[in-house]
Amino acid sequence: MGDEQVKLVAAAVQFAPLLGAVNDNRSRIAQAIVEAAGRGAELVVLPELCTSGYVFHDAAEALASSEPLDGPAVESWTELARMHRLTVVAGLCERGDSEAVYNTAVVVDERGLVAAYRKTHLWDREQEIFGRGSVPSPVVETTHGRIGIAICYDSFFPEVMRGLSLGRADLIVVPMNSPAVVPPVEPQSVEVSMAVASAAANRVFVVQADRTGRERGVDWTEATVIVDPDGRLLAGPASGEAVLVAELALEQAREKAYGERNNVILDRRVELYDVG
Amino acid sequence: MGDEQVKLVAAAVQFAPLLGAVNDNRSRIAQAIVEAAGRGAELVVLPELCTSGYVFHDAAEALASSEPLDGPAVESWTELARMHRLTVVAGLCERGDSEAVYNTAVVVDERGLVAAYRKTHLWDREQEIFGRGSVPSPVVETTHGRIGIAICYDSFFPEVMRGLSLGRADLIVVPMNSPAVVPPVEPQSVEVSMAVASAAANRVFVVQADRTGRERGVDWTEATVIVDPDGRLLAGPASGEAVLVAELALEQAREKAYGERNNVILDRRVELYDVG
Repeated sequence: MGDEQVKLVAAAVQFAPLLGAVNDNRSRIAQAIVEAAGRGAELVVLPELCTSGYVFHDAAEALASSEPLDGPAVESWTELARMHRLTVVAGLCERGDSEAVYNTAVVVDERGLVAAYRKTHLWDREQEIFGRGSVPSPVVETTHGRIGIAICYDSFFPEVMRGLSLGRADLIVVPMNSPAVVPPVEPQSVEVSMAVASAAANRVFVVQADRTGRERGVDWTEATVIVDPDGRLLAGPASGEAVLVAELALEQAREKAYGERNNVILDRRVELYDVG
Repeated sequence: MGDEQVKLVAAAVQFAPLLGAVNDNRSRIAQAIVEAAGRGAELVVLPELCTSGYVFHDAAEALASSEPLDGPAVESWTELARMHRLTVVAGLCERGDSEAVYNTAVVVDERGLVAAYRKTHLWDREQEIFGRGSVPSPVVETTHGRIGIAICYDSFFPEVMRGLSLGRADLIVVPMNSPAVVPPVEPQSVEVSMAVASAAANRVFVVQADRTGRERGVDWTEATVIVDPDGRLLAGPASGEAVLVAELALEQAREKAYGERNNVILDRRVELYDVG
């Protein structure tokens, strides 16, 4: 295939931002990226809104923690990408035009910012705070594989994960901020089952980075995991702040065969589906 | 809503058929249905191909264990449905016209046979043994709720589960024969994660009945579970033969709201999906 033996060392960072402490968060994110690099990571995935925290009272408060796509966060990640020859995917509280704020994920590599995606499925009070993305999440070609992006609740829509896989993503990164449910779902959170199901249904890797750290009374599911195309957990979940690392054999995601006689894409019976 | 407080007691039977022992299997299936009825079940779900076993050498062997839709299995389930006022969904090795054999699921209630569905996504050697269904799986209106059907590998296609949910299924039943993988996926099999993800993504109940009992060297995942629309396991998984019972509050599946501001169907951004 020419694609054989493409290995990628990926890290998923379970991180605890401090609400509104943008400079401090950026500094601690940089430390986590350096730690991941030290463990061989070529791709580092950070949670949704890792620059700002999540539980804003209103849009004005989010705006105060936002920054543009050419701001200090992307600048920092570009420096780190160049220094450590890696790719960063992270959630950013993005300041757009006219004081609009977006729940955005960026892909940054040695070239600098290579893609930005604004969340298209907004969860709960996000609808009152963030502008809603109007462009589908992309599959981004990088030196570290073809990366599809889904932010948290996006990944609960199988159409998103299927679309990224049909778009030839090797891996889907899921920056996440998932509020915990009480009691927890056992033996595995729904968010982890969702990542497993998406990986297996599409034979794609999923690198999901959830946050941690109580914020204004909210706890988090801590559903940070790295899943292979068989639906096996290569890393995670973990409790508290953690840098999870796994080696991904990307060719496994490029061959959609499942056993000897099946193929999860070619076996679809599109003519029988009524999902419009 | 008029639909409030619709409770359904559902049973998922993890059953070990003996290959080719059609009469013995039918007798033991009847015992399991009677046991489920004794525990209050109004719906009893049995595994894929529970009448015949699974690991056939070839189509001729499957044909020898097949029976038509007006054969002794459906006759037995009709009697039991009338006697215990319940609905049975079970996998049947169906003899069709011209000696074709199908991997079929039937819905039987006090009226007798009310629906039959031939599996549309055939797994592995099933392709050499069974005819492939050409009609989408239906949502069947019964006195025990609106029942969508997916047989085993069908359920690995999110399009199937979404389509049944858009077709207003309250619950999706999944007769299954899932060969075990070695080592097992921990802490929860992919088949269970798939059921959880389908339930949560669609806010629908999933009643999945897998088989057990080594057959020609094949072991099984034993992924029998009953899952609610939050993705919580109400029953299962279990080891060995088992009758799992849970009460389903069907109105939970008729209201697709998720939290205060979301709805898993209305939140779809169909205009952004490219899944054809």
